[in-house]
Amino acid sequence: MKRLEERIQKEGLVKKGNVLKVDAFLNHQMDIELFNEMGKEFRRLFPDEGITKILTIEASGIGIACIAAQYFHVPVVFAKKSQSLNLDAEQYRAKIESYTHKKTYDVIVSKKYLKPEDNILILDDFLAAGRAAEGLIDIVRSAGATVAGVGVAVEKYFQEGGKRLREKGVRVEALAAVQSMDEATGKIVFLRQEE
Amino acid sequence: MKRLEERIQKEGLVKKGNVLKVDAFLNHQMDIELFNEMGKEFRRLFPDEGITKILTIEASGIGIACIAAQYFHVPVVFAKKSQSLNLDAEQYRAKIESYTHKKTYDVIVSKKYLKPEDNILILDDFLAAGRAAEGLIDIVRSAGATVAGVGVAVEKYFQEGGKRLREKGVRVEALAAVQSMDEATGKIVFLRQEE
Repeated sequence: MKRLEERIQKEGLVKKGNVLKVDAFLNHQMDIELFNEMGKEFRRLFPDEGITKILTIEASGIGIACIAAQYFHVPVVFAKKSQSLNLDAEQYRAKIESYTHKKTYDVIVSKKYLKPEDNILILDDFLAAGRAAEGLIDIVRSAGATVAGVGVAVEKYFQEGGKRLREKGVRVEALAAVQSMDEATGKIVFLRQEE
Repeated sequence: MKRLEERIQKEGLVKKGNVLKVDAFLNHQMDIELFNEMGKEFRRLFPDEGITKILTIEASGIGIACIAAQYFHVPVVFAKKSQSLNLDAEQYRAKIESYTHKKTYDVIVSKKYLKPEDNILILDDFLAAGRAAEGLIDIVRSAGATVAGVGVAVEKYFQEGGKRLREKGVRVEALAAVQSMDEATGKIVFLRQEE
């Protein structure tokens, strides 16, 4: 998505440890007009009329998912990062290893909001190592529901997450796929995509 | 706001310790159509053309703030709950005591996204003891910016937060104000508001 790529080129910052900082418009300050364009693009990429719900994960996926949901006319559920080890029979749960924060946390979704008949679109801001998406897929499958696909604003294509998901047969769509980025020069190269 | 009150009556659950559980439509699963009605109502309550930004706090304020922002045509910034004690000169910071979780945490906002010329509308899902709103107000004022007001989906009017903020001269608007709720019977009574 050209507009998102341009914005990343203009305002994204390449930081130490393969971090792409886009907090000016995507995950701290949020440009809602841009989010609307992204929501329309997610709808174009996932035209399936059978999607029943959007699943995301707190915190930075929520805004993207809520704005996109307007084009799908479905509710959003966000998985919560749990700090307690309190096991609750009423929740689906997955362990996610955070690439950025180098730690493992539990995410939970109430069983009330995922049903076997659901066809779930997973949306998030970033796809890198793919652990968050995999955790959400596990949760959807625990509920006996179907994964319609995974949509992300930015895929760090040089990391293995997207490849691994695609090899498992999951449909993955990124609005902007970063092929390489250079901490020293700040240069960001996007994957050449078909028009 | 009648539609929100009706929804709370129908699907809200009164839990031990003065907890009102509305995770079916407000802060775990999110009804985006309802959020749009809420966004329009926030706009009606805060018609000020001078609002430059909406500030909220992760995680459950983000969806409400993003949908509402479409009616204000401004960006959203969400304050992040910080787990580190790492002091960063580039961030505004406030300490917030959580009523529900009985603990204190830091929230941070990058100095890049709050400027003295900003006129900030603070939006959140709940107002109870008022600590989150006060923390966000502190952050706005640390930036030398102005607080246009505080808007919440649900105010627990029987707790002291809203009263304390109003006494300090902050404009506070709640879409649904709970006057009383009863854990034993599940009964929820809303504050009688003018039409």
